[in-house]
Amino acid sequence: MIETTKAYIAGFLDGDGSIFFQLVKKDDYRFGYQVRASLVFYQKSQNIKILNWLKNKLRTGYIRTRKDGMVEYSIVGHSEVFRVISLVKDRLILKKSQAKLALRIVERIGTGIDSAGKLSRISKEVDKFGKFNYSKKRVRNSVEVRKFLFSHKLLSP
Amino acid sequence: MIETTKAYIAGFLDGDGSIFFQLVKKDDYRFGYQVRASLVFYQKSQNIKILNWLKNKLRTGYIRTRKDGMVEYSIVGHSEVFRVISLVKDRLILKKSQAKLALRIVERIGTGIDSAGKLSRISKEVDKFGKFNYSKKRVRNSVEVRKFLFSHKLLSP
Repeated sequence: MIETTKAYIAGFLDGDGSIFFQLVKKDDYRFGYQVRASLVFYQKSQNIKILNWLKNKLRTGYIRTRKDGMVEYSIVGHSEVFRVISLVKDRLILKKSQAKLALRIVERIGTGIDSAGKLSRISKEVDKFGKFNYSKKRVRNSVEVRKFLFSHKLLSP
Repeated sequence: MIETTKAYIAGFLDGDGSIFFQLVKKDDYRFGYQVRASLVFYQKSQNIKILNWLKNKLRTGYIRTRKDGMVEYSIVGHSEVFRVISLVKDRLILKKSQAKLALRIVERIGTGIDSAGKLSRISKEVDKFGKFNYSKKRVRNSVEVRKFLFSHKLLSP
């Protein structure tokens, strides 16, 4: 990808995009939680063109129209979020620290969460990440994850 | 300005910026209205850094904190809006047509609005421009401007 395209995408991500991590409760997961990484852009439906352009450049993710009429372009998953952030990271200004922390979390997860201790440590990093986004919604955090791990005797307090 | 900076600013403008024209009632103006051009970026106050960065690159405009806690970086005036849009125009994707129309309006205004006919024509271009922005607020339009010009016998219906 040429540098001006990377710079444009970095500017658009700084202005309109969101990077986030979620601790998703999964009953069929060994340690009860999935750590989900997402990179999302939202636009009014009349602006879908720019989301198609981005998807074409980034070659990943999916676009859907929400019930409220907004259009959403989502890239979900550690490896794809890692690849896209790595592409534009050096050109980011507003979200540079957030992007670096996202890369660090994905790197630490590595080939997967294979111990309760690792899930506990990663969930604390996810808490730190959440501070960038100022969500008013109640979100699952490391306190909840650790309670779950203790109560299921997967981790000792 | 280097091309990657232009591309970043174009991306940020496409994601977060607004270009608009206003027909502002001015009792001391010969034809009753000022045509005001603006380019504005809004951010939460914790993100003021990116607005300072932009102002430093664009060398124009002013930053103010609004009562609702948002920070606003505004560039107001035909020549400054023209200069900034010209800088990034070729890198815009979402707002490219809007940017071209803005440049055309400013070019048509040229050295000023020196006739009622010119104000009437320009106010129709401003109407077209307003269609890009989908504002729910009632805005002054060419119908109002022309009514004013007719009622003051500055223009014949």
